[in-house]
Amino acid sequence: MTSPVLIVGSVALDSVETPFGKLDRAIGGAGTYSSFAASLLAPVRLVGVIGDDFPQSALDMLARRGVDLEGVKRIAGGMSFHWAGKYEYDMSSAETLKTELNVFEQFDPRLPDSYRDSPYVFLANIQPGLQLSVLDQIDSPRLVVCDTMNYWIESARDELLQVLSRVDLALMNDAEARQLTGTPNLAKAADQVLSLGPRYVVIKKGEYGASLVSEKGHFSLPCYPLPQVTDPTGAGDSFAGGLVGFVAWLGASTEEALRQAMACGTVLASACVQDFSLEGLKALGVSDLYDRYRQLREMVQFRDLPPAEG
Amino acid sequence: MTSPVLIVGSVALDSVETPFGKLDRAIGGAGTYSSFAASLLAPVRLVGVIGDDFPQSALDMLARRGVDLEGVKRIAGGMSFHWAGKYEYDMSSAETLKTELNVFEQFDPRLPDSYRDSPYVFLANIQPGLQLSVLDQIDSPRLVVCDTMNYWIESARDELLQVLSRVDLALMNDAEARQLTGTPNLAKAADQVLSLGPRYVVIKKGEYGASLVSEKGHFSLPCYPLPQVTDPTGAGDSFAGGLVGFVAWLGASTEEALRQAMACGTVLASACVQDFSLEGLKALGVSDLYDRYRQLREMVQFRDLPPAEG
Repeated sequence: MTSPVLIVGSVALDSVETPFGKLDRAIGGAGTYSSFAASLLAPVRLVGVIGDDFPQSALDMLARRGVDLEGVKRIAGGMSFHWAGKYEYDMSSAETLKTELNVFEQFDPRLPDSYRDSPYVFLANIQPGLQLSVLDQIDSPRLVVCDTMNYWIESARDELLQVLSRVDLALMNDAEARQLTGTPNLAKAADQVLSLGPRYVVIKKGEYGASLVSEKGHFSLPCYPLPQVTDPTGAGDSFAGGLVGFVAWLGASTEEALRQAMACGTVLASACVQDFSLEGLKALGVSDLYDRYRQLREMVQFRDLPPAEG
Repeated sequence: MTSPVLIVGSVALDSVETPFGKLDRAIGGAGTYSSFAASLLAPVRLVGVIGDDFPQSALDMLARRGVDLEGVKRIAGGMSFHWAGKYEYDMSSAETLKTELNVFEQFDPRLPDSYRDSPYVFLANIQPGLQLSVLDQIDSPRLVVCDTMNYWIESARDELLQVLSRVDLALMNDAEARQLTGTPNLAKAADQVLSLGPRYVVIKKGEYGASLVSEKGHFSLPCYPLPQVTDPTGAGDSFAGGLVGFVAWLGASTEEALRQAMACGTVLASACVQDFSLEGLKALGVSDLYDRYRQLREMVQFRDLPPAEG
């Protein structure tokens, strides 16, 4: 009874350099990473745009994972969105070397009719105006999750605020939450994001894990510990894909389900960063997901205090 | 049947400025913060040195909490260790404006005979050579915890390595673990610290919580979320005091007990940063500790995955 997930985002080619290697025009993009991650758990309907240069073999691989590609438009004569970046020794942030929007510059997400009834939706990081356009094309989703980035917080704040007023769960990293609210204290910043509309906010903290905040309180998860991070690209999108994929798989988006979904997202993100492009995600099977999920649970367990004397 | 905790560290006067206020020569120091925190849970034996300027009223307050001050030496004609620092808007790190070692420069920790049988020991951040001297003066402790800082990692590395080979649990922050091991990946850095001798390493991550690593694996805790941090000074020392205080209270230092101890440390640290000097710790009673501890437990709970289909 698993429901489908609608994902709208970039389908791109990435040129990435890390201390562990270098790739030229490998499969990437927020829509791709999140779809690939979500498709471990639920069928995915992807909306994106590609050029002539995007390999058919990659589309075939997505299709085999259960990603519906009816919404992915190939523009004849165009080139795919291309990002080039480099991670230094500490892997905590990328230096962007190149952003070539190419066909993505004219991206106007049109949902195939068959996508409109999607109950679970992930609006990956795209121009907030386009996120609004997608919201106008879906019937009555049960959970809508959005991502964003520092650039839109600064350059398209009004539209982003409209998006936030219409989604159920806003994903952002700690720096973005601080930037959006002008508040350095993260707990306070999260509360301020909630006051903008979403019922939930998930603050991603990179190697320090992630927190889910709602009016009921806080839930926090560490990262799944890895002795080597090979390429951090796509970690946040894999997290989002794992989160929304789990919710669709379970068919529930209660706070309890979202806590489990965060743990699935954490596991998918851990798989993503273990290798370049989609290779890390490919290597993670369902039984690996269960293993890591249970290790994560064990990693945060501690007993209640014994009763105080007297 | 609570056992005493021996704490060796600075007893100081701090001049602190944060966006929320300014204090001149208030009670501070790693030994003071950790003793005050630990004394909520267990009797404390403190070793430190002070000058004429350290207020008797502060010593009386420590004594009333159950801190044995036989090991605190007042040097007539001397001035107490004085640190002055300033926190900017984001509170994540202090700018040190002044470090006046004063009587602390000649600190030579001598344990009163009555302290030698202390079963639980916290060596706060002091010159590693002095930490070694304390280790030579104690009989057969059940758990020895040490802290350190970037300065000693650079300037007294050999002595610090000797300390690490003789303690059970090494406390350090993420930057210090990376500096000590030359390894940016925290999971790997923690393993490398373990290879230097301690059975446990606790990595403090400031607002992102703390992790306990042993050969058995990882345990991670978030911070207790607070809408306002008034003064971060002493947070790490309060964490350490709460940790070792709990272990002494319980009379056990198994991995399971250390997980609980980390949660107690997290609660004490949260109380510390809510006000200046010792005021935040003073305001936390045992019932508040229980409340926050249980909230922390609730903050990390999530259910197991449902069985996979098929």
